[in-house]
Amino acid sequence: MSIAFGTAADGRFVARCDGGIVAVPGYGSLDELLAKPRAAWLEVIEHLSSRERVDAGSLEPLDVPSPEWIDSPELALPFTIGDYVDFYSSLEHATFFGRLLRPEGDPLLPNWRRMPVGYHGRASTIVVSGTPIQRPRGQLNPGEFDSTRALDIEVELGFVVGGTANSLGDPIPIAEAAERIFGVVLLNDWSARDIQRFESQPLGPFLAKAFATSISPWVVPVAALEAVRVHGPRQEPEPLPYLIGGGDWNFDIALEVELNGERIAATNARGLYWNAAQQLAHLASGGAIVRPGDLLGTGTISGGQQESGGSLMEMGRPFLADGDEIVIRGRAGDVELGAVSGTILPHR
Amino acid sequence: MSIAFGTAADGRFVARCDGGIVAVPGYGSLDELLAKPRAAWLEVIEHLSSRERVDAGSLEPLDVPSPEWIDSPELALPFTIGDYVDFYSSLEHATFFGRLLRPEGDPLLPNWRRMPVGYHGRASTIVVSGTPIQRPRGQLNPGEFDSTRALDIEVELGFVVGGTANSLGDPIPIAEAAERIFGVVLLNDWSARDIQRFESQPLGPFLAKAFATSISPWVVPVAALEAVRVHGPRQEPEPLPYLIGGGDWNFDIALEVELNGERIAATNARGLYWNAAQQLAHLASGGAIVRPGDLLGTGTISGGQQESGGSLMEMGRPFLADGDEIVIRGRAGDVELGAVSGTILPHR
Repeated sequence: MSIAFGTAADGRFVARCDGGIVAVPGYGSLDELLAKPRAAWLEVIEHLSSRERVDAGSLEPLDVPSPEWIDSPELALPFTIGDYVDFYSSLEHATFFGRLLRPEGDPLLPNWRRMPVGYHGRASTIVVSGTPIQRPRGQLNPGEFDSTRALDIEVELGFVVGGTANSLGDPIPIAEAAERIFGVVLLNDWSARDIQRFESQPLGPFLAKAFATSISPWVVPVAALEAVRVHGPRQEPEPLPYLIGGGDWNFDIALEVELNGERIAATNARGLYWNAAQQLAHLASGGAIVRPGDLLGTGTISGGQQESGGSLMEMGRPFLADGDEIVIRGRAGDVELGAVSGTILPHR
Repeated sequence: MSIAFGTAADGRFVARCDGGIVAVPGYGSLDELLAKPRAAWLEVIEHLSSRERVDAGSLEPLDVPSPEWIDSPELALPFTIGDYVDFYSSLEHATFFGRLLRPEGDPLLPNWRRMPVGYHGRASTIVVSGTPIQRPRGQLNPGEFDSTRALDIEVELGFVVGGTANSLGDPIPIAEAAERIFGVVLLNDWSARDIQRFESQPLGPFLAKAFATSISPWVVPVAALEAVRVHGPRQEPEPLPYLIGGGDWNFDIALEVELNGERIAATNARGLYWNAAQQLAHLASGGAIVRPGDLLGTGTISGGQQESGGSLMEMGRPFLADGDEIVIRGRAGDVELGAVSGTILPHR
């Protein structure tokens, strides 16, 4: 089963099935489906999985040329983004940046192994794959406002929240993660490292990551990823009870990064230290409302080596030049996550 | 003129005029009005300001008892929050916290006088005045998950964005601030200082400020604040060009804090180092889309003394106990900003 959900540029709610792209019956938008309980998601998936029904004509195939359509501009942002949270869940990535910032101390701060550290990102600038990325300007140094000279990528997955929002003050028990995590997209959290370095203390990254965040047009439901569900790494110290008992929420998803058509790195999401269920439970642990349409980024997924880096800095490569195209591809066993791409335009 | 806009709990879009509360003619919601250009805002304000028209019956007064209604639960969140950004624009507040964190160094980091430092907050947990605030739980120390023992307030203003969203990659020139800043609310950015201390490095505050942010039910349009517009403090060093030329965007708004009916502090927004136009121009300077419904918090407004503190820490007071009620009141000359209130409930 390789079903995924998307939104055509004309607003039609569509699904990618094994044989092509079809209109999703019974729902006007992915937003509408996300707001339904998990039982409704599974019903739609089951319905679409029955290829016979397409052949028998009860589903209406769309007149689109299909697989190539995946990266084409005819697909729009798949759903309306609510709150966007970006986590920092890769031990290898956090260690790399910790070493840069604190070469003499422990690369991990005391909170890192205790909780999925995260922060809120900007929802308004989440764009669909293929959207050109204009090189942002910002304060690079005291008194210097210019186009960034340190434009980087961050290879991530984004988990898409669905289901009924919890009430203000109510946590989401980790055992309910399956009711609230609908699916996954590929995510590139474009980052301007010079802007980030100057602006980020004490309140964290802001404009350095708020000029564009690209996601893949197809949301692959968690239901399609059962075959690639894996144990995560052992967590030491043992997490607090609210972060335990969600089951296996790591996924064996192979990720590749291409720069101008050349593969420059390959990594895998299976080794992420903190998993999606833990991220969700942590986010709601203080009573925050988590709504359908919220997006939870994993943070950069890095393998600890240059060839498995999730950012150009970790790959030991130069930052992006104008005209460069980045494509991140994802595959989970037989299931295509597709791609998220973007080409850098000079500041206009 | 003391016009303000709000949303009744039954969904009606209402305005507070000198003589009472009326339905706003021609618009179904504040969201709808926010998305219109400034000319439309001014037209509605001008229409409502003509009290004769109310008396003549062309506006329909609502059958609500009026002034008391302001803080009553019959008012809902006034508009749909887009992205919420919280700035850190009070020199006195930043200095206080800088001294705590870096007692030996310069209390201000190198970026602070160069840009309005800010971060993204959580939109889903912005609630209307009067909503009970449940004491949040979180990680207070390594291995300790419990109800916060350090529940604080932050006295702020929130500027409400309207007008036509800029395109991805396009800045908003500071001279266009009047076209994009619709009005202002009172804002209490409830903060759990122990959660904040443990979680905030390196990505900034997250759950410590994501359990509830209260705003006043009435949005006072900037057009009603012309009489209290004032020069801000001298900025040294001179800001970069994109932060200059917006005119006077400081407002002489007196703010009072009450704890259980007793006045415990009084401050004023007039002295904020960074003003609302500078916050807006900075936010969009890297190309971020700023949409109608976005909310820009000033950050805690402090006067530098205990009696003018914008947080309990700055007032030298103990943190909040269960049952405590906080009311923040605002007045801009003749214009009532009303109040934002909340009572602390124990964790349920």
